[in-house]
Amino acid sequence: MTKKTIGILGGMGPLATADLFHKIISLTAADCDGEHVRVYIDSNSAIPDRTAAILGQGPDPFPAMRDSLRKLEACGADCVIMPCNTAHYFLPRLQGLTDIPFLSILESAAKACRARFPGKTAGILATRGTLSAGLYQAALEKEGVSCLVPEDWEQDALMDVIYGGVKAGAKPECYRTNLLSVLETLSARGADYFVLGCTELPLAFQLLGLPHPALDPTEELAKAAILFCGYPLKYQRTEQA
Amino acid sequence: MTKKTIGILGGMGPLATADLFHKIISLTAADCDGEHVRVYIDSNSAIPDRTAAILGQGPDPFPAMRDSLRKLEACGADCVIMPCNTAHYFLPRLQGLTDIPFLSILESAAKACRARFPGKTAGILATRGTLSAGLYQAALEKEGVSCLVPEDWEQDALMDVIYGGVKAGAKPECYRTNLLSVLETLSARGADYFVLGCTELPLAFQLLGLPHPALDPTEELAKAAILFCGYPLKYQRTEQA
Repeated sequence: MTKKTIGILGGMGPLATADLFHKIISLTAADCDGEHVRVYIDSNSAIPDRTAAILGQGPDPFPAMRDSLRKLEACGADCVIMPCNTAHYFLPRLQGLTDIPFLSILESAAKACRARFPGKTAGILATRGTLSAGLYQAALEKEGVSCLVPEDWEQDALMDVIYGGVKAGAKPECYRTNLLSVLETLSARGADYFVLGCTELPLAFQLLGLPHPALDPTEELAKAAILFCGYPLKYQRTEQA
Repeated sequence: MTKKTIGILGGMGPLATADLFHKIISLTAADCDGEHVRVYIDSNSAIPDRTAAILGQGPDPFPAMRDSLRKLEACGADCVIMPCNTAHYFLPRLQGLTDIPFLSILESAAKACRARFPGKTAGILATRGTLSAGLYQAALEKEGVSCLVPEDWEQDALMDVIYGGVKAGAKPECYRTNLLSVLETLSARGADYFVLGCTELPLAFQLLGLPHPALDPTEELAKAAILFCGYPLKYQRTEQA
């Protein structure tokens, strides 16, 4: 039986790409090297910023993303995943170029929200590009999950955490206050839990050791890809419980 | 100016591949996504065990490694690195197939030993395949670094740490005693520091928080690849001091 392989269209950002790769490995039930999924990665740091492009303030990342897609196709990837929520704005156009299925981080996360936090309200933490394009709002609505989005000042603070903090390799203490203030005001407005809807944010949560109830879309995408390829999840029994 | 790209011929093992990728990112001086190296990875879990092959007890991993090399070539990698010390037994044959230079983890580690621990004796911690092929002994001798190798029972204990521990995803506490006993007896025989000459061992050291003086070949390989590609090291000034 030939199992399937994963292609990661990455580099958006590099650390988030490493995080997704690490989660794929650590969430696979494997006792030796040979029991892991084969993974192809293009960590393409030359892809222009997605939020800047969506807001009309920067170059189009699509040509560089297409270049990475072609490389993953040439390798023989059976599915493609992107460790960047904002990049999913371009997913329909990319999917139009290939028969290899993209697995969506938005869909994986939205399904997990419905399953794990039934009837609760999600506070969406994401980039300005992701939220202005309504990517998470649409994905969560499709699953019947109610949500709250950041206000303007909260969005500015989140962008600082993502760009000035994690992407810049800053010390976690530099962005703790900013992130906590957003969590506090979103909670006060009615958020029961948080969707870490930018792939830099699970890194920030982990580095800061934050105890807030949260859903990690990177982890959900990793699980979806492992299962798509026909491999068992490490905590499958727990997940089904 | 077009900078160069890295190809990682990986999957040997997957976690060690993720570790090398993470070290490349975290050791690059970069303030945003675009300042990182572009990295292509084939985490090829179908490559048969290297030690078993060297000892004549398992299938030849060369064809699968060649397949990964061809994929990295097709992506356009400017250099190839392998996060598996034992795999370097096959490096000369692989190098014969391509004009893309391989950067050797053995050479990077040996140069760092000479620079950081002048006049000291290295205790080599590695797989039975790596040591029986004399890979580290030769690389260290070329740099004038004296070394000690594990005795038979120590080698058995190390193989348990690597295969039954890290590669199997076991809890670090399961292999602490085994690893500490090897460090203790090698120290008693005259090792001043340890070369973590199997890419699973820096993971074990980190997970166990061991304070012993040690050289991490994965980190040295990451630095060599960053510099080869024309990117600055995050701690370059400290390194040169």
